[in-house]
Amino acid sequence: MKKLMNDPEQIVTGFLEGLVAANREQLQRLEDTDVITRRVLKPQKVGIVSGGGSGHEPAHAGYVGAGMLDAAVAGEVFTSPGADQFLSAIQAVDQGEGVLLLVKNYNGDVMNVEMAQEMAEAEGISTEMVIINDDVAVSDVKQRRGIAGTVLVQKITGALAETGASLKEVKRVAEKTVNQTRSMSVALTPCTLPAVGQPSFDLADEEMEVGIGIHGERGVDRREVVTSEEIAKLLLDHILEEIPEQMPLALLVNGMGSTPLIEQYVLANDTIKQLEKKDRDVQHAFVGEYMTSLDMAGISLTLLALDEELSGYLQAPVQTVQWKQ
Amino acid sequence: MKKLMNDPEQIVTGFLEGLVAANREQLQRLEDTDVITRRVLKPQKVGIVSGGGSGHEPAHAGYVGAGMLDAAVAGEVFTSPGADQFLSAIQAVDQGEGVLLLVKNYNGDVMNVEMAQEMAEAEGISTEMVIINDDVAVSDVKQRRGIAGTVLVQKITGALAETGASLKEVKRVAEKTVNQTRSMSVALTPCTLPAVGQPSFDLADEEMEVGIGIHGERGVDRREVVTSEEIAKLLLDHILEEIPEQMPLALLVNGMGSTPLIEQYVLANDTIKQLEKKDRDVQHAFVGEYMTSLDMAGISLTLLALDEELSGYLQAPVQTVQWKQ
Repeated sequence: MKKLMNDPEQIVTGFLEGLVAANREQLQRLEDTDVITRRVLKPQKVGIVSGGGSGHEPAHAGYVGAGMLDAAVAGEVFTSPGADQFLSAIQAVDQGEGVLLLVKNYNGDVMNVEMAQEMAEAEGISTEMVIINDDVAVSDVKQRRGIAGTVLVQKITGALAETGASLKEVKRVAEKTVNQTRSMSVALTPCTLPAVGQPSFDLADEEMEVGIGIHGERGVDRREVVTSEEIAKLLLDHILEEIPEQMPLALLVNGMGSTPLIEQYVLANDTIKQLEKKDRDVQHAFVGEYMTSLDMAGISLTLLALDEELSGYLQAPVQTVQWKQ
Repeated sequence: MKKLMNDPEQIVTGFLEGLVAANREQLQRLEDTDVITRRVLKPQKVGIVSGGGSGHEPAHAGYVGAGMLDAAVAGEVFTSPGADQFLSAIQAVDQGEGVLLLVKNYNGDVMNVEMAQEMAEAEGISTEMVIINDDVAVSDVKQRRGIAGTVLVQKITGALAETGASLKEVKRVAEKTVNQTRSMSVALTPCTLPAVGQPSFDLADEEMEVGIGIHGERGVDRREVVTSEEIAKLLLDHILEEIPEQMPLALLVNGMGSTPLIEQYVLANDTIKQLEKKDRDVQHAFVGEYMTSLDMAGISLTLLALDEELSGYLQAPVQTVQWKQ
């Protein structure tokens, strides 16, 4: 294993310190926590908090800023942050209008956020949680993981919150976005946890893993590597089953950490072509590393079925470290 | 070799088509060329053109847009585009104010641009070329390669051109920026050309290559992998030798293609800390994949010595696919 790091146990700290050091006017780290918040909160708005295990950078701290998150909570690599950390984030961003927590569907994250919510309610802070579960690779909907589609939910919800909408309204739109978002991934290589030093699983030279999770969880199928065109078709076939016909789409092509941008755009090209052949209207396309899995090579596709409301918030201005428009 | 691609010979075409398909309102590809231009040119400005071999994405097509480039010319992977392609770009963006070409210091690129300039002059189009050679790993200054610092030159020059400055003035500031920019790289893994299928060189499990070029050229030194702190020190020691004391700095931490963002920020953190210990004032820090080398794992550091003029253009608004602020 070769990684740019010092003590493997300190890689999350190094990341958070580096992110703040490079963006001091915009971000701060709450003392004695792994919580990153905006340096200046916009007054009288609902707070938007997300978080989870690290290893998915730029998620989530790279999305803290105007038009998206107010705070991000970072756990150790692939490990949920504790309830106390989520509570610190809630306390830091609540301005009396309440706080919405956007949580990827993993048991540890959901449990810790629920505990933090109870503690916050005891202090008189209103909170709501919306669980993101966009990964169609898992057939049981309750067990579905939150993967790259999460960032579209964060973008849209954050844009709405910025307008001064109520907690109830922000929650409604977040849930609607979750309901209309579907993703699926493929890995060409596994990832290696810094503190472990060994790949999370083995993949032969000519194999790929289909339906992989963002923590190196094994996928649903292993097969020979195929072309970008065929990978696009494979993922779209699964995703489109659950996306209503007729509705215009936003597309997110997400690199998993070690996939060069040239390859991401090759797959984006094949994906857009195939969608257009099916007469689907791709209104917005995003390509890049939005939700990674350490040094995994691979890609995920996300489709979001748009209506006018969601499209507007997706296009709204955003000023975070990683997503600016 | 596992890559997201179709025919390896078509990977550049796939990238360019994907980039335009995902950004139709902003970009277009000139017919029968590998030239990407802004869809709408800003009237009465000097045209800014850059280009070179592919494999360095998002460079250069990802930097076409308001406040940066007017056109980018893409060659095959690690191969200079022909003079005819540069000429097409010049013709497309000239509006009577002339065209500045920003060229990384490789013989093929320089020769082809010079030929294109001759052909353009014959058509009555004024052109100038500025050669970028920021890589301090090469001691002979004339032989120095252009690497990641190139994007800072493009950013600053593009911002100035956007104000309506003359060709002469734009060239002056581009040259000044080149003179004040220094970079150096380290690779943890080699890169693999799509059409070759084999790594460009071998690196043992515990080795790194210091002073690597962006085409997988061998570096100046091979040694055991060290910590992020030590890599930061090693690169800074070389770069700072050529950066005037006292001047404030812009820092670019550039991932080489397969280095996850978490590691890029760990190195950014160590770099900023060491610069601050030396009482250097880091006014701007950029972290991400700006100039890659296919799927190489590694990093480059760039320092740009700032004065008020360069600092202003560096902070100016920019709206390209890959760099927005």
